[in-house]
Amino acid sequence: MTARVLIIDDIAANISVIQARLRHEYYRTFVATSGEQGIALARLENPDVILLDVMMPGMDGFETCQRLKADLETRHIPVVMVTALGEREDRLRGLAVGADDFLSKPVNDLALISRVRALSRYKQMLDVLRAREINGRKLGVIEGNSGPQFGHGGRILLLEHDERQSRKIIRALSQRHRVIPFDEAGNLGPAARAACDLLIVPLQMQGVDGLHICAALRTQETTRHLPIIAITERTDESRALRALELGVNDIVMRPIDPEELAARVATQIKRKRYADALKDSVDQSMEMAVTDQLTGLYNRRFMENQIAQLMKRALKSDEKLSIVIADIDHFKKINDVFGHDVGDDVLREFASRLATNFRPTDLCCRIGGEEFVIIMPNTAEDQAASIAERLRRHIADAAFKSPRGDVIPVTVSAGIAGLIGRSDTPDALIRRADQALYSAKTQGRNRIMAAA
Amino acid sequence: MTARVLIIDDIAANISVIQARLRHEYYRTFVATSGEQGIALARLENPDVILLDVMMPGMDGFETCQRLKADLETRHIPVVMVTALGEREDRLRGLAVGADDFLSKPVNDLALISRVRALSRYKQMLDVLRAREINGRKLGVIEGNSGPQFGHGGRILLLEHDERQSRKIIRALSQRHRVIPFDEAGNLGPAARAACDLLIVPLQMQGVDGLHICAALRTQETTRHLPIIAITERTDESRALRALELGVNDIVMRPIDPEELAARVATQIKRKRYADALKDSVDQSMEMAVTDQLTGLYNRRFMENQIAQLMKRALKSDEKLSIVIADIDHFKKINDVFGHDVGDDVLREFASRLATNFRPTDLCCRIGGEEFVIIMPNTAEDQAASIAERLRRHIADAAFKSPRGDVIPVTVSAGIAGLIGRSDTPDALIRRADQALYSAKTQGRNRIMAAA
Repeated sequence: MTARVLIIDDIAANISVIQARLRHEYYRTFVATSGEQGIALARLENPDVILLDVMMPGMDGFETCQRLKADLETRHIPVVMVTALGEREDRLRGLAVGADDFLSKPVNDLALISRVRALSRYKQMLDVLRAREINGRKLGVIEGNSGPQFGHGGRILLLEHDERQSRKIIRALSQRHRVIPFDEAGNLGPAARAACDLLIVPLQMQGVDGLHICAALRTQETTRHLPIIAITERTDESRALRALELGVNDIVMRPIDPEELAARVATQIKRKRYADALKDSVDQSMEMAVTDQLTGLYNRRFMENQIAQLMKRALKSDEKLSIVIADIDHFKKINDVFGHDVGDDVLREFASRLATNFRPTDLCCRIGGEEFVIIMPNTAEDQAASIAERLRRHIADAAFKSPRGDVIPVTVSAGIAGLIGRSDTPDALIRRADQALYSAKTQGRNRIMAAA
Repeated sequence: MTARVLIIDDIAANISVIQARLRHEYYRTFVATSGEQGIALARLENPDVILLDVMMPGMDGFETCQRLKADLETRHIPVVMVTALGEREDRLRGLAVGADDFLSKPVNDLALISRVRALSRYKQMLDVLRAREINGRKLGVIEGNSGPQFGHGGRILLLEHDERQSRKIIRALSQRHRVIPFDEAGNLGPAARAACDLLIVPLQMQGVDGLHICAALRTQETTRHLPIIAITERTDESRALRALELGVNDIVMRPIDPEELAARVATQIKRKRYADALKDSVDQSMEMAVTDQLTGLYNRRFMENQIAQLMKRALKSDEKLSIVIADIDHFKKINDVFGHDVGDDVLREFASRLATNFRPTDLCCRIGGEEFVIIMPNTAEDQAASIAERLRRHIADAAFKSPRGDVIPVTVSAGIAGLIGRSDTPDALIRRADQALYSAKTQGRNRIMAAA
């Protein structure tokens, strides 16, 4: 897959060498000759990868990277810093300001293309999610921006057999993370694996091809989206590049530099949390569509959808299903006497008592002003009635109070109906519960009635 | 990037050849020796690509493919059919039952890996979107399943210089699609390009490298997600494989077989529409979170978010902003006299008149029972008042009728407030409009009042 690459470098000869290599692989390139110009182009063009020279007059690569990573418009774009060969300090500084990877000069063709390919793949996946987030922000259902994310406090699975090597890695990381060593890791179930933030896999292990392990982790449902850092011998570059091709996210060479490992781990964990935050914010905004804003209970839309689905399921598996329609008595009067704000407080308090009196499997929904529906799967009418009665008492007996300390008279009436049989429909079930509620109201309120 | 590949073939020797090749590239393989077993494994393992042999006893490849594509659980998984060399009829039948691509026996290594890689990339992108859709379906904010999509009625951009070739392609496609030939295509702006469903690009053109064109299309914002079919000489397979690497979605060889081209075009258009439908359903479910279910207007959540954003923007650019709070007079009485269903009809009719009386730039929200807020950017208070007055007349003068034909007396009162200055807040603005509404109510209703 091709991609758009922004090259930031002040030396024309460097630019043209890299540009020629990328163009030969059909990448599209943009060029900036200073940090300022690079930042402006990154905002304008949203490239898939940025290749950033460290040594530039004026704003150097570190400052440029820091600014790119602090900017909401560009923070998600992977940055590869181009440093002099073996400049350890540069790499550590680069990682500290958020660089995603490094290339040493003179830039090796294969290393360049592998990195650009791996990072642009990551970026293009993010773009699909970011498009949804941007849309959600416009609508106001997603607030703020995902991130910045922390790079510490991660759960790391270490698949290193060698005990000495393992101890060294744990020592480098255990201050800021929880590292699960190989012997423990083997006992983890799929769910525990999926709950990790990062996998560390050595590519050379006794009798095992580390690349096979990486490929297997990438193809298993529970680990396919987890970041992987592969550890390899300095002499085995082709294996490292192959690992990147397979979807490994980063490479650390032996002998392991503890600081560099720690910095790369932090980068990967930040990136994972950013992608997770994007997914979560989209999922949460969908949940918002079925949530009542005032009380946090489900809303009418959810109730209508679920009642149909749960009735179908109950009929299929021959189970019972009951619903309760509850209505606060004389709620208008509460609003008139105490004002709308207190009325809203009453609704919130009522909802919270409702949620604690019903069971986790019951679906509590606010479907209108002071009207609530509770769907109770696998529940007979008489059981539903006794839970509703418990709620009624809990509402009538424990006083509601206004912020000024006045006692607010709150009682609730409710109607109950149970699923009858195959010919029953959601509308009919609701109608029966509504009629029972009407009886409860006409017989004096503060009471529970079951459908005849 | 590695992937999970399901091989469906009844002959052990075929399986082991393909399996060995895929494993060498670190792909994970699953094997089924009949159509039935293959379908079951596809549902269980959700592979990224299915390699499906055509010739099998019992359920053959065509029927297996058709079933896979008809099943909601597996329809999104790309299927590559493995056919005898040059079996044109098999390819056409395969395309008709939904196959995504073909390989001829004996299977060429490079061709196998290129196809698997291109299709698994597509699948993994879809999976990100599908996960959101599945979540939305669980919540009931997304109904049904995206697709099946039609493969006709597409807008196709044809980037072929050669007039004779161009005519041939247009002839093959114009019955079921709108094909825009090269000379017209050159004049299209970016928006018009983005509105296309498919691009057809010949890889050999006079003086131009077709791969460069494909790469450029893949890296431009407006075309990067559009499917591309590349057309190439039969002798130039390496170029075809390179094109797949760059992100081209399918290849058609010259001399062009019109039926095969038409079938491949239909497949690509269906796939694009499926991905679009997934994105749309996620975006729409987010919109649902800010939509009032009864009237289709925006809801309170949206109002609160937008009023803050629009106030900020107005203050920044020194523009005016007004809001209207409108409340239907004596709405409870309508419910009591005519019943809730008629009350809901009145709310819907009121909302529709509201929406037609205000302007497209005004944001009309229902924030509670019979209460509405209209946010009017770039609007002075007196202008807001005259638009609100127009609404008031339109409500009072044109009668609302019940389904039985009874005239329902509906009038509206409204309060108006405008943004004062930097110290103003959303809460204060709403409070002023609320006070004006209160005055309108106490002075006899059916009137518009502006904040003092």
